[in-house]
Amino acid sequence: MQPLKYIGMMFPLWLAISANAAPSIQSEPIQPIPKAVIKNPAMVELGKKLFFEPRLSKSGFISCNSCHNLSTGGSDNLSSSIGDHWQQGPIRSPSVLNSSMNVAQFWDGRAKSLQEQASGPIANPKEMASNHVLALDVLRSIPAYVNEFDKVFGNKNVSMPQVTKAIAAFEETLVTPDSRFDQWLKGNKKALNAQELRGYQTFKTAGCVACHNGPAVGGNSFQKMGLVAPYQTSNPAQGRAGVTGKDADRMSFKVPSLRNVALRAPYFHDAGAPTLEAAVSTMGKLQLGRDFNQQEVGDIVAFLHTLTGKQPQIVLPILPASSNNTPHPTPFN
Amino acid sequence: MQPLKYIGMMFPLWLAISANAAPSIQSEPIQPIPKAVIKNPAMVELGKKLFFEPRLSKSGFISCNSCHNLSTGGSDNLSSSIGDHWQQGPIRSPSVLNSSMNVAQFWDGRAKSLQEQASGPIANPKEMASNHVLALDVLRSIPAYVNEFDKVFGNKNVSMPQVTKAIAAFEETLVTPDSRFDQWLKGNKKALNAQELRGYQTFKTAGCVACHNGPAVGGNSFQKMGLVAPYQTSNPAQGRAGVTGKDADRMSFKVPSLRNVALRAPYFHDAGAPTLEAAVSTMGKLQLGRDFNQQEVGDIVAFLHTLTGKQPQIVLPILPASSNNTPHPTPFN
Repeated sequence: MQPLKYIGMMFPLWLAISANAAPSIQSEPIQPIPKAVIKNPAMVELGKKLFFEPRLSKSGFISCNSCHNLSTGGSDNLSSSIGDHWQQGPIRSPSVLNSSMNVAQFWDGRAKSLQEQASGPIANPKEMASNHVLALDVLRSIPAYVNEFDKVFGNKNVSMPQVTKAIAAFEETLVTPDSRFDQWLKGNKKALNAQELRGYQTFKTAGCVACHNGPAVGGNSFQKMGLVAPYQTSNPAQGRAGVTGKDADRMSFKVPSLRNVALRAPYFHDAGAPTLEAAVSTMGKLQLGRDFNQQEVGDIVAFLHTLTGKQPQIVLPILPASSNNTPHPTPFN
Repeated sequence: MQPLKYIGMMFPLWLAISANAAPSIQSEPIQPIPKAVIKNPAMVELGKKLFFEPRLSKSGFISCNSCHNLSTGGSDNLSSSIGDHWQQGPIRSPSVLNSSMNVAQFWDGRAKSLQEQASGPIANPKEMASNHVLALDVLRSIPAYVNEFDKVFGNKNVSMPQVTKAIAAFEETLVTPDSRFDQWLKGNKKALNAQELRGYQTFKTAGCVACHNGPAVGGNSFQKMGLVAPYQTSNPAQGRAGVTGKDADRMSFKVPSLRNVALRAPYFHDAGAPTLEAAVSTMGKLQLGRDFNQQEVGDIVAFLHTLTGKQPQIVLPILPASSNNTPHPTPFN
């Protein structure tokens, strides 16, 4: 054993040098994202297959990854998503990255968990347009899937709770640690430049952190879109009111996580802001009653760019072949 | 050095035992697929990004991988592909796997090379529905792409020949070596069972190998679909005649590779055969004038299953974010 070398590996040089000046994580409203802990690798692997499985859709063309594309920040980055027969979805697709940290799923939080969320789009006639009976018929017709479900769940039934549990287990691994901001939070003062730091200070002092806080920099509360002045939009979504039935929840949406936000313009549930600059400016006006000047907007945007973390490294799954008994996709009827 | 051990590693035990009985590769009409040799890793990596890049389509939704899905044998396995605005494509999508071994690209061979092929779908109004000017505008608006093109091609122009050259370089790596049949070809007698071997013998003696030969087990010639009796189909594709203008080339199509064929029902350019059994039976009748009996069909299908090779292991690329200047996708107009 070489005790000194060992300590050197645990505490890198920059930490030793800047320890006194390092910020305290506890005192900041944002915390670093922990790395994914994979508890059940076989279930995660099955979930990954299902996440990329186009045969869960009626057309055989749309998978979870179609609208939550892991190549592009976990979203399709369209104004609204494209569903079966090219139907226009009602809302901008939220990112699947770090979604396990959300207080609930969907913009209106109508699903309490990732598992509950996962069953929705498969059977939504405007999204994947299949139904749970057909989706299970497809999976049960493919021997390699039946064997894999058996390995993971201990039986060959292949049920929808198993399907969604596996998808959720995979999605829980889709976290993005090690952003430059997290490196700074952990004490590496050089991880941010002066403008980015200034942006973070403005982000805090202006009150953005009131809603965008915690490890996901949001995702943990519902807030009214248009708190100080009403939000102008032609999108009919009314947010949380559709779930609670309360008029007071009209235009209340889940605060989106700002992690990796630089990867996924356009912004807001209706994609009303084409750029980060526009989004920051509008948020200042409508939520905080504040007109950020050009430098403040630029500083905050610079800070937001530091929230882009290490993207999950996904080896594309090889999906098992259909058998002669697999129901055929029907994309054109 | 331990010479004996070294030799043992080079020549595994089974080869030493069965050397006398091993088939000679030279005497077989099918040869093993060589592993991919990556000459220019940076170009291949750029090509992979472009292959998965939905922003090369007008909608921002369709990438090369949409119809040539590397999770499902390099194809979408639909009767005909889905294009922009859910348009029904005219033909079944061919697999991109081992496509570098094809004599030409597309079912009618209208593209001489993978590079020539790659430019087609981007600008085809029934496929990705963009155009080359717009596609280049998108790429040139993204600084990380401009830098990557510069690194690979030595200039920051970003041109369509560069785009298609990179995509082709990636596609050339998409080979599937080490199938059980290739293991057998290389001398491992135990790699095939009795039924599979019988199927291969029938495949040879019946004359299937006349067209399905070489490393790709096809892909290297054009043949008339319906040689002995005409092929009945409602699909209007006339094959090679559309390229050569010769009436004699009517219904002449590129013979598809049978590598990984078990992964990608349905079969034929019009997806007229839902199963491998149906495809083998129809081919026997229409191309060879032969009614395979049930055992012969089963044997040949068993042999075809041994042509599934090691699928390319693809780490999903992380695509660079759009900039404020990136043209917005327009999926709904």
